[in-house]
Amino acid sequence: MKKILNSADSFVQDTMEGIRAAYGDRVDFLNDDFRVLVSKYPRKAGKVGIVTAGGSGHLPLFLGYVGSGMIDGCAVGEVFASPSSEKMADMIRACDDGAGVLCLYGNYNGDIFNFRMACEDVEFDDIETRQLLGRDDVASSPAERADKRRGVAGIVYAYKIAGAAADELRSLDEVVTVTEKALANIRTMGVALSPCIVPKVGEPTFTIADDEIEIGMGIHGEAGISVEKMLTADQIAERILDTIEADMPLTAGDEVSVMINGLGSTPLEEQFIVYRGVSDRLKAKGVSIVMPHIGEFATSMEMAGLSITVFKLDDELKKLLLAPASTPFYTNTNK
Amino acid sequence: MKKILNSADSFVQDTMEGIRAAYGDRVDFLNDDFRVLVSKYPRKAGKVGIVTAGGSGHLPLFLGYVGSGMIDGCAVGEVFASPSSEKMADMIRACDDGAGVLCLYGNYNGDIFNFRMACEDVEFDDIETRQLLGRDDVASSPAERADKRRGVAGIVYAYKIAGAAADELRSLDEVVTVTEKALANIRTMGVALSPCIVPKVGEPTFTIADDEIEIGMGIHGEAGISVEKMLTADQIAERILDTIEADMPLTAGDEVSVMINGLGSTPLEEQFIVYRGVSDRLKAKGVSIVMPHIGEFATSMEMAGLSITVFKLDDELKKLLLAPASTPFYTNTNK
Repeated sequence: MKKILNSADSFVQDTMEGIRAAYGDRVDFLNDDFRVLVSKYPRKAGKVGIVTAGGSGHLPLFLGYVGSGMIDGCAVGEVFASPSSEKMADMIRACDDGAGVLCLYGNYNGDIFNFRMACEDVEFDDIETRQLLGRDDVASSPAERADKRRGVAGIVYAYKIAGAAADELRSLDEVVTVTEKALANIRTMGVALSPCIVPKVGEPTFTIADDEIEIGMGIHGEAGISVEKMLTADQIAERILDTIEADMPLTAGDEVSVMINGLGSTPLEEQFIVYRGVSDRLKAKGVSIVMPHIGEFATSMEMAGLSITVFKLDDELKKLLLAPASTPFYTNTNK
Repeated sequence: MKKILNSADSFVQDTMEGIRAAYGDRVDFLNDDFRVLVSKYPRKAGKVGIVTAGGSGHLPLFLGYVGSGMIDGCAVGEVFASPSSEKMADMIRACDDGAGVLCLYGNYNGDIFNFRMACEDVEFDDIETRQLLGRDDVASSPAERADKRRGVAGIVYAYKIAGAAADELRSLDEVVTVTEKALANIRTMGVALSPCIVPKVGEPTFTIADDEIEIGMGIHGEAGISVEKMLTADQIAERILDTIEADMPLTAGDEVSVMINGLGSTPLEEQFIVYRGVSDRLKAKGVSIVMPHIGEFATSMEMAGLSITVFKLDDELKKLLLAPASTPFYTNTNK
């Protein structure tokens, strides 16, 4: 196992201590506990809190979006494992300013189970909470069972929308409503070329031949739709957009944002080659792209591959997407 | 060769077309030629132009720093190969606003040869030029032959300083003077865990065993100082800082900026674990870190490994480092 670390046991704590050492002026551990990262950015009084949680190994997801204009706190688990409900409850309490807290996270059993317990727990403190799940991975379940879909990179767009709505001092119900609309308009699908290694396991999460690509794979190595001979960049763009558009049709005049998300070891050059294919296809169709996101937003450590997310916009969603946001890992200055 | 591309021959053009498709509102090809990328950001009249050039395969280096507050243009070669002098000359002409142009690039023979020709060429257009070379890689040559050192990730700091000085409407001589001071204060060293593949070659650039690390390797796979059994993150930090500090001593009260630069497939988690070690060591020594840079700034496509850069600051350099800058790949809003 060739990883740059001190020990598999301290991997998450060492990572978090590095993040605090680098960005402690903008984010901090809650009560000196590396399992909960909270924002130190100035915050409007009475703002709805937006929080998330998830396993480690996906940087900048999840904690990288703690800051201004996105999320206020993130509870951090071991690699690919949910944090505890206690940590989530601590975080919710810290991020409530009297207007309630939206818990926005991916559709994984551990996170759902723990967030439910945490939300029940903070009821005793009279904190109002709501829960919304990212379920953007179209490859993980057919449309008729869309509630079973996994949450992947598209949740970054949901953080952006929820955070911008909260910054407008909308009520908890209003933030929930617009975030639900965003979630309903986000679709993602990924391909993987090589596995990653969970530090405490020390073995690759799956195997794949040197000339093969797995279509529709999840960010923890969950099996995809098919394993095929390697495709070109344009073929990958076509294949993914075919699947996404079958699920969420796009027509001339539509505006979308597109995210090309590198899973870890896929070079930025290759991500732009895929973006070129996506852009050409959408342009030919009369669909325009607003504020493209290209880079690493939700990784699987050193997994090779990428995902494409399409986020269909209306005027309200576009305005919230374009609103300023700033975190140590994400900046939108609107140029 | 498992790369996401359409063909090895179109790798650079396809990448560049993807970048223009994504960020054409902020950067553009010069005269529709994908070999030269120029800034479309608003630019102060009479500003000294800052340009660079280099081979492809290092994104975000070099072209990713074209924008506002850094560089104005970049000529783009094939993977790991210099662009032609003609393209460089076209770029210099486009980036001159009457105040002259600083050509700031890495110490590689092809780039030096071609930039010299380009600068002679634009003399006929009465354009004043100066050339400065990044030579930050301490592992590539001993101190007594520091002029032979290769330029690596530290050049990003030099772009930042030169761009900020030019934005203050300093003269060409003044921009050169402060950029020379910056270059003299920048040191980098890297380690590699796995090779990359140049698309047109199709073979790994070097081989290394599954339990080994190469210390001091260059960003094109140039041989380093030694190949050793895998080290821990803290040992890597110590080893690199030992070498850098032997070359550029640091003492209590010094201020530095530190860059942890992932070479391509090394996860962000691992980069923060190394940053933690660097930060602890410098703090113990009484050296404070300003505006750390952690992420991918100068890659070798899918090479695994990272480099550490230390940039020793004085008041002038610190002020220029903290000045605002914005490119499609780099943003400093000063929070």
